[in-house]
Amino acid sequence: MKTNKALVVFQPSGRRGRVPKGISIVEASRRLGVDIEAPCGEKQVCGKCKIRIEQGIFQKLGLESRWKNAGPWQAGEETYISSDEKEKGYRMGCVATVEGDLLVFVPEAARAGKQVVSKAPRPLDITLNPAVKQYSVHVEPPSLEDPAGLVERLCAALEDTHGLTSLSMDLDVLRTLQETLEKGDWQAVVSVWMDREIILVQPAENTTIFGMAIDIGTTTVAAYLCDLISGNVIDTLSMMNPQVKYGEDVVSRISFHMENRDGLQRMSTDLMDGLNSLVRRACSKEYSRPGPDNRSEPEQAFRVQPCEIVDVSIAGNTAMHHILLQLDPAPLGVIPFTPAVHHSLDIKARDLGLKVNPAAHVFTLPIEAGFVGGDNVGVILAEEPHCQDAVQLIIDIGTNGELVLGNRERLISSSCATGPALEGAQIEFGMRAAPGAIERVVIDPETVDVDYKVIGRDAWKSYSSPDDMQAKGICGSGILDAVTQLFIAGIVEKSGAFSKTLASERFRIRQETGMKEFVLAWAPETGIDKDIVITQQDIRHIQLAKASIYTGCKLMMRKLGVEHVDRVKIAGAFGSHVDCKLALVMGMFPDCAIDKVSSVGNAAGDGCRIALLNREKRLEADRIARHVEYMELTLESDFQMQLMEAIHLPHMRDRFDHLQDILQA
Amino acid sequence: MKTNKALVVFQPSGRRGRVPKGISIVEASRRLGVDIEAPCGEKQVCGKCKIRIEQGIFQKLGLESRWKNAGPWQAGEETYISSDEKEKGYRMGCVATVEGDLLVFVPEAARAGKQVVSKAPRPLDITLNPAVKQYSVHVEPPSLEDPAGLVERLCAALEDTHGLTSLSMDLDVLRTLQETLEKGDWQAVVSVWMDREIILVQPAENTTIFGMAIDIGTTTVAAYLCDLISGNVIDTLSMMNPQVKYGEDVVSRISFHMENRDGLQRMSTDLMDGLNSLVRRACSKEYSRPGPDNRSEPEQAFRVQPCEIVDVSIAGNTAMHHILLQLDPAPLGVIPFTPAVHHSLDIKARDLGLKVNPAAHVFTLPIEAGFVGGDNVGVILAEEPHCQDAVQLIIDIGTNGELVLGNRERLISSSCATGPALEGAQIEFGMRAAPGAIERVVIDPETVDVDYKVIGRDAWKSYSSPDDMQAKGICGSGILDAVTQLFIAGIVEKSGAFSKTLASERFRIRQETGMKEFVLAWAPETGIDKDIVITQQDIRHIQLAKASIYTGCKLMMRKLGVEHVDRVKIAGAFGSHVDCKLALVMGMFPDCAIDKVSSVGNAAGDGCRIALLNREKRLEADRIARHVEYMELTLESDFQMQLMEAIHLPHMRDRFDHLQDILQA
Repeated sequence: MKTNKALVVFQPSGRRGRVPKGISIVEASRRLGVDIEAPCGEKQVCGKCKIRIEQGIFQKLGLESRWKNAGPWQAGEETYISSDEKEKGYRMGCVATVEGDLLVFVPEAARAGKQVVSKAPRPLDITLNPAVKQYSVHVEPPSLEDPAGLVERLCAALEDTHGLTSLSMDLDVLRTLQETLEKGDWQAVVSVWMDREIILVQPAENTTIFGMAIDIGTTTVAAYLCDLISGNVIDTLSMMNPQVKYGEDVVSRISFHMENRDGLQRMSTDLMDGLNSLVRRACSKEYSRPGPDNRSEPEQAFRVQPCEIVDVSIAGNTAMHHILLQLDPAPLGVIPFTPAVHHSLDIKARDLGLKVNPAAHVFTLPIEAGFVGGDNVGVILAEEPHCQDAVQLIIDIGTNGELVLGNRERLISSSCATGPALEGAQIEFGMRAAPGAIERVVIDPETVDVDYKVIGRDAWKSYSSPDDMQAKGICGSGILDAVTQLFIAGIVEKSGAFSKTLASERFRIRQETGMKEFVLAWAPETGIDKDIVITQQDIRHIQLAKASIYTGCKLMMRKLGVEHVDRVKIAGAFGSHVDCKLALVMGMFPDCAIDKVSSVGNAAGDGCRIALLNREKRLEADRIARHVEYMELTLESDFQMQLMEAIHLPHMRDRFDHLQDILQA
Repeated sequence: MKTNKALVVFQPSGRRGRVPKGISIVEASRRLGVDIEAPCGEKQVCGKCKIRIEQGIFQKLGLESRWKNAGPWQAGEETYISSDEKEKGYRMGCVATVEGDLLVFVPEAARAGKQVVSKAPRPLDITLNPAVKQYSVHVEPPSLEDPAGLVERLCAALEDTHGLTSLSMDLDVLRTLQETLEKGDWQAVVSVWMDREIILVQPAENTTIFGMAIDIGTTTVAAYLCDLISGNVIDTLSMMNPQVKYGEDVVSRISFHMENRDGLQRMSTDLMDGLNSLVRRACSKEYSRPGPDNRSEPEQAFRVQPCEIVDVSIAGNTAMHHILLQLDPAPLGVIPFTPAVHHSLDIKARDLGLKVNPAAHVFTLPIEAGFVGGDNVGVILAEEPHCQDAVQLIIDIGTNGELVLGNRERLISSSCATGPALEGAQIEFGMRAAPGAIERVVIDPETVDVDYKVIGRDAWKSYSSPDDMQAKGICGSGILDAVTQLFIAGIVEKSGAFSKTLASERFRIRQETGMKEFVLAWAPETGIDKDIVITQQDIRHIQLAKASIYTGCKLMMRKLGVEHVDRVKIAGAFGSHVDCKLALVMGMFPDCAIDKVSSVGNAAGDGCRIALLNREKRLEADRIARHVEYMELTLESDFQMQLMEAIHLPHMRDRFDHLQDILQA
């Protein structure tokens, strides 16, 4: 029978379905919810989406899968697929198409990871002044003598008891008002947004309300569930940004939108579905809090209802902000990089499709410019460089690098195209900071032997049997470690090139590409059944990343007219894992006393939480966004020259001595 | 095969479908969208829902229909179904149930009419000051030197050119802003709601915006489509309130809600679907307006897009208001008749599901009390008794009767339970003021012969052949005419009873019920194949209706402390058809100089239009709603006594002389 659809089954997940013939296997995986990694946005330049076509008649699955059903072999596939792999049925998922029924095996390396390291909140001293506040009132039951409407009665009570005037009420609240007031015997607890709108009325005395601060990164989404009465963080939830399957970085997302008519809609819907899954996760858990008398009472268990989440703050870079709100992100990708809006917005949760209390407002932090968004405003809210005399340099390294420099007098921000190398993308065996990622590397300069540690396992390789390591790849901090260690061990030269003289079985040239590589982990130590290596290309990516951050800092310092900075703070996921000292000595940023360099974790998320819990800080956020001067680095005439100068490993001689001292300390 | 569903086919519409066994045929008709009349709300007291079960095997329809498939004959059906009719398969649709496959014929009398007389707008002198105003601006295209967001650029232009500040923007507008600005080459026309929120941005100079004023009556819905630039009424659209199938009056609707878990949802959805069909109708028409130069240019054709309808005002009685907004109407039916809210509301069209511009606000007129709603506020806005010295009495007779009495010093409103008799319900052959309804009656006192006129046909019966009349029933004004004429002709006595002495073939006693009736139209003159009669019961209903209006007026005058009124205005659909003189002499309201009695048409709709076109009047509406004193007539100790006194036909002797004078004039 001839039809226009074919059955595709993905293993090991077992997800299956009929898809239109002619679409790529990566596209089929998206439609069936399997999520093959395609960091390059199907540009056929990353080779991450390598999958295997299984041959045979699979009765149980009801299909006959043949290699030819995946379309003809394409020029370019051999760049990523060896002749040996080709023999076994490997194809690139973005090139191979569905031409007939297929059984597709997705190797672990190509699976979009679901598990991410959570971004723990830092203890912050936030003055509690949330946008949504609770007011307890007694409402007079109606009578023939006083037949005023329920809204008028409630508002009169709020005015008499709490001095609130000119309140409006959300329609959803109005719809259940009668029932709620009767249920509580005309005693009610009213949640009012910005002293303006009634968004929730609860019947009992013992009521709770919650807020959620959501930091939407290009790669990772972190959400902090907070008690709006105490200000405490109840839970931290995180997930991969579901848009990762459309491309690893901001630029590939924008491209996906421009190349697909429904691209924006799909990315936005996927993200919103993801946020809703976070809300569901929060509402399915059982939490506990101290009893009324902190000491003697046992902890009380409680759950959170979606309707009790009455406030949400969201911080994200400009592209994430635009995609979430379904604002055309295309202008962000072309000069003059104009965003649709700079100001913070208050949007009804129901209008966004966020399944918290539908009457809640979602506050989106304002954005600074096309490449510096609400996440950076969050960083400034949390670190407060604008309130201090000391000149601070804050480097937020996520999928994009964002820089802030200055003090109370002047603040400059910029975005530097680090590329996602520091998050493990563009690196042959790069991966995110997830279980199985090599995060620490030490290389013995004498023997050139490698010791390493993976996320999720405390014991280093030298204290483990090879089987136990199950390494899957290298994350950003591991790559920086590796490059530094290769450099110290003399395997990599100042220029970043592999030493020509090294003789070690770990150092080799790959036949297919002629490229030099160094083996960090042998196949038996891995969970992916192949050697994990770091290639010459990988080192080049890291060099470029660190050089662009360094150059950005230098150009900003020149603009601000300062020779040195008083403090350096490294924020973001990379910052949490990286050794600040290593970053300093590798020349990732200008010189600074080592005790003035610190990691500040997810400062963007912290700032988002601050905005959630203190409404004054929302006004401050808008002031900050207006006040910060955005600097477009690439428009500086000597940008390229500066970048080239910064590309060498430690690019100043004195750095190298510094390095020896520090590492021997 | 035994299943829990049965096939039901309705003729002549041909609508069919499978419905659960055991539900009533009226319920089945609702589910299949056939809409059998059930004015009493299936209380089995009106007999309107009489249908016929067809017997036989209907191959083409795929069913075998038997009388027994409609369940056993029930006690009470014989009240409305003669033994002859029973023989032919007639049943009451609210009693007969679906027990097997059925072919159901719905006689014309039982079909909920779709055709209603439109409520033409009166020419009003309204100061144009709408809530939504247009502003034309040039927006500076973004540049690297000035990279401000699009919203910020637009707002800056609006501030510079028009002095507007602190504007917000609807998310939907934001989503298309880039595209719109580029399309118009950075020249834009911006629609701003209440100088607060940007709800539409259009690219060209030559742009139009519209508003819709909607008067939601219990029976009829009228919508005025207005040009917001000129203030002109472009079109008047009307329809039956789709909720009529759930019950004819407010009380049956409230009952339907209380007896059905999803009753409120269903009534609200049906109404909103109906409003959306009005919007679609308006947007499917081609309108025309004068060319740029009024005289020489030909008229320009134009169409209205849903997104160009940027403002909506809605007036309705309290129950309609609550049902529309899905607010629990149950409390309106019990002491102390408390509404959920009195104030006017501004609700986003998208939140209501109204398919105009989703960013538009729907303004609902404030309500006065549980039984006097925004329609009455509209009447006051239009007639302005609160701005005058003269004491006005305004009687708005729709399905409910609403009364306003007073002047600038004091205003009282009340609601009187006229019952729907004056709209033709509860009357054996009553129907709405729709084509085929007898609207005028003259009876020759000598011969007792009847002449009449039907809506939709200019020639009276005496100038037509019987075949041409096709009378279907009697509408409110026809009933009042008939009763008056019967009284003048001596056929009906002062007490309302039929004269015992009359000998005429038109006067007879119905065998089944023993009730006296008078034939207005013989079967051959009708479109329903039976004599149209007026019964003793019908006369009682009319007496009760006019007595309750009269009593209401009297009690209100006593409260206000006035002996007589300076003006009487009759509003509403009944008011448009009725002869004001007849109403006066029949004692429907207290005495007043006949030249001071006038009909003012759909004043509620006019007031709604005023609120649409003048935002100051919205504030005035809220002031009026607070200012008017609602009087609950039934709580007056002598209400019943007064009502009994008013029940006689012209209850004062001098009235009768009056009558003779007037009718002979």
